[in-house]
Amino acid sequence: MSDPITEQIHEMGRQSRTAAYALSQLSTEKKDTILRAMAQGLRDASTEILSENQKDILAGEQKGLSSAMLDRLHLDDARLEAVAAALEHVATLPDPVGQVLEDWVPASGIRIEQVRVPIGTIGIIYESRPNVTADAAALCFKTGNATILRGGSEAIHSNRAIASALDAGGKKAGLPEHSIQLVPFTDRASVAAMAGMDQWLDLIIPRGGKGLIETVVSLARMPVIKHYDGICHLYVSEQADQEMAVALTVDSKTQKPGVCNALETLLIQESVAAEFLPKVAAALRSKDVELRGCEASRAILPDLIPATEEDWSTEYLEKIISIKIVPDIAAAISHINTYGSHHTDCIVTTDEAEAEGFLHSIDSACVMHNVSTRFADGGEFGFGAEIGISTDKLHARGPMGLRELTSYQYRVRGKGQTKE
Amino acid sequence: MSDPITEQIHEMGRQSRTAAYALSQLSTEKKDTILRAMAQGLRDASTEILSENQKDILAGEQKGLSSAMLDRLHLDDARLEAVAAALEHVATLPDPVGQVLEDWVPASGIRIEQVRVPIGTIGIIYESRPNVTADAAALCFKTGNATILRGGSEAIHSNRAIASALDAGGKKAGLPEHSIQLVPFTDRASVAAMAGMDQWLDLIIPRGGKGLIETVVSLARMPVIKHYDGICHLYVSEQADQEMAVALTVDSKTQKPGVCNALETLLIQESVAAEFLPKVAAALRSKDVELRGCEASRAILPDLIPATEEDWSTEYLEKIISIKIVPDIAAAISHINTYGSHHTDCIVTTDEAEAEGFLHSIDSACVMHNVSTRFADGGEFGFGAEIGISTDKLHARGPMGLRELTSYQYRVRGKGQTKE
Repeated sequence: MSDPITEQIHEMGRQSRTAAYALSQLSTEKKDTILRAMAQGLRDASTEILSENQKDILAGEQKGLSSAMLDRLHLDDARLEAVAAALEHVATLPDPVGQVLEDWVPASGIRIEQVRVPIGTIGIIYESRPNVTADAAALCFKTGNATILRGGSEAIHSNRAIASALDAGGKKAGLPEHSIQLVPFTDRASVAAMAGMDQWLDLIIPRGGKGLIETVVSLARMPVIKHYDGICHLYVSEQADQEMAVALTVDSKTQKPGVCNALETLLIQESVAAEFLPKVAAALRSKDVELRGCEASRAILPDLIPATEEDWSTEYLEKIISIKIVPDIAAAISHINTYGSHHTDCIVTTDEAEAEGFLHSIDSACVMHNVSTRFADGGEFGFGAEIGISTDKLHARGPMGLRELTSYQYRVRGKGQTKE
Repeated sequence: MSDPITEQIHEMGRQSRTAAYALSQLSTEKKDTILRAMAQGLRDASTEILSENQKDILAGEQKGLSSAMLDRLHLDDARLEAVAAALEHVATLPDPVGQVLEDWVPASGIRIEQVRVPIGTIGIIYESRPNVTADAAALCFKTGNATILRGGSEAIHSNRAIASALDAGGKKAGLPEHSIQLVPFTDRASVAAMAGMDQWLDLIIPRGGKGLIETVVSLARMPVIKHYDGICHLYVSEQADQEMAVALTVDSKTQKPGVCNALETLLIQESVAAEFLPKVAAALRSKDVELRGCEASRAILPDLIPATEEDWSTEYLEKIISIKIVPDIAAAISHINTYGSHHTDCIVTTDEAEAEGFLHSIDSACVMHNVSTRFADGGEFGFGAEIGISTDKLHARGPMGLRELTSYQYRVRGKGQTKE
């Protein structure tokens, strides 16, 4: 606790507590006005943000970052305008804070209300994308939470410029001091310092690769909401409409292969495999997807690449799919519950009873019948905004919108009731 | 991972996963039948349970446990019957599993249902009370969760006998194997082994003293729901009905001083302190409560024991109360949010607007107006059963009943919708 990094981060924590109280007292209207002012702050500072972003890009090029990484870092006028517009969109969404979830009067006559309230202070630890600085801050702010952001070293100049623009813009409309703070350090010690200060941070959301999440999970004393892999499955039953099954497989796999709700493993019921596999393989190949198959599938299509045990638990995030033939739905369920990541899994069948059996047996955040796995998404769910897709089972599971950034409290009103 | 304790506990984790799946498929009726059979199992094994309990009592006496500790350990026919009856009561409660929390159809036409499901496997780490073995197992079982119990060394014989009776009784009615497992070790290494196996345990609930909770929090990789202190406050406004304020203070402090929702600190508005303090002091003293006061209160009643800074953050859990005079409601709110433990805090006032200001500004699980703090309780809330009172803000806050032992999943039904 004596090193200066830890001390400075703890001081930020202390300051965020005061901010969190101020934020919890703001009206929805006031918060929305501030969000629009923050968007304007980004526009006003666009020259500086883009020039700071250039420093990150140059440093990234010197470090030899991949072109995909550099693209994620890159900001231009259009991208910055999209970030500003996203803040304005958050201002239009309904505010979950203050919503009464339930109210009732038990026998004693006390009146109990369960009401949504902000969580308090949320720590966001993320990697390269600088837009997360604004997006995450906006969602946490809209729900009345203070935010402590700790971005990656690759985007540090961009992040500083964005955070300072949000603060400058927001303050013009009354943003409480220390509502949105950016940690000025990007080393591992700063993650450890945040993970240890459970007296100031109520929640940490790590956004990034598995290594980052693992580090946070092993260090954190406060709740962590994790966004691990999406090893998503699609099971094609012998009762499936095969044309629909081909379309859903192709869409789930190829519409955006690099995201967590993209398909990774196709399971096919044995009795229809000889008929279905060639059709789906042709459709996937026409979209340049690499096919890796189990032994039984290679007996039908010998040119499939042999799938290894490791394939069943791999999130490719690219145009690769693993294919396994299973005898029946029970084997499909068992495979998914064993190798899956409990994110999103789908059955294709025309048999309603079979579909219901699947939906009730798969231990995943999203279970689907005759829908592309790509619909497991806060936008498609109508949440209006998404902070991520939780692979945890507690507090928030699956797509997380604004309400998942709230807690609740019980407000109890009485007439002097005592127990004795 | 190579030591035998860790290996055995991990093996229990693996087995609980299979049990959790079986439990998730049981109907409410089946679960209730099994709960009644577990109650009968306790009754059938009463002779053995009580004789094993005697071993714990003797060992405790030799170790020099306090009489309060020994009383917590002690079982007799009446206490065991109460435990059995509690299992039967859980069988009568509504089952939250399967409840549809929300359903809607977004623009794409997919039908989305948010449904309560079991969490999976829950670890309960507790100290001396052997009844927790049955109580916690019953609540987790009713909600379709597998349970791994790890009790304290003082109660190990009783815990083993109870767990084995639950298993034997339950199996007669179809309890899936490994649904309720008791860790046979009571050393710290077994806590560390449980806290590390996030691949098998979805949640840990530590029940016991601060030291135990701290240990679990620092080691756990999975979510932990904590039950920390209750440093509860009652604020008496100048607008209070003083007779009511005296009654609420006495009830909150003395009706059961050793529990977390008992009152610890009384705050009195300055303008009425000279009138109110002597009345409440006399009433508390007539119940043998020790009074510790701030300087201003000692100016009114010089025989109060001086309160130190430490008193404001102490959970006495006995007949001691700290008293502070504050200028106004803002000072009361600030004191509570600073020194309190965010458990339960109450205002006494006849002014509705003032009460609402308090309820909206206190960052605690239960905020109350004109009610004894002792009403912050699952029983008083009508939950039918209580696994504890969470001082966390995520997933479950305040009194935790059956529904707080569930997660949810999204079930999505479509007609072949694709994104492209």
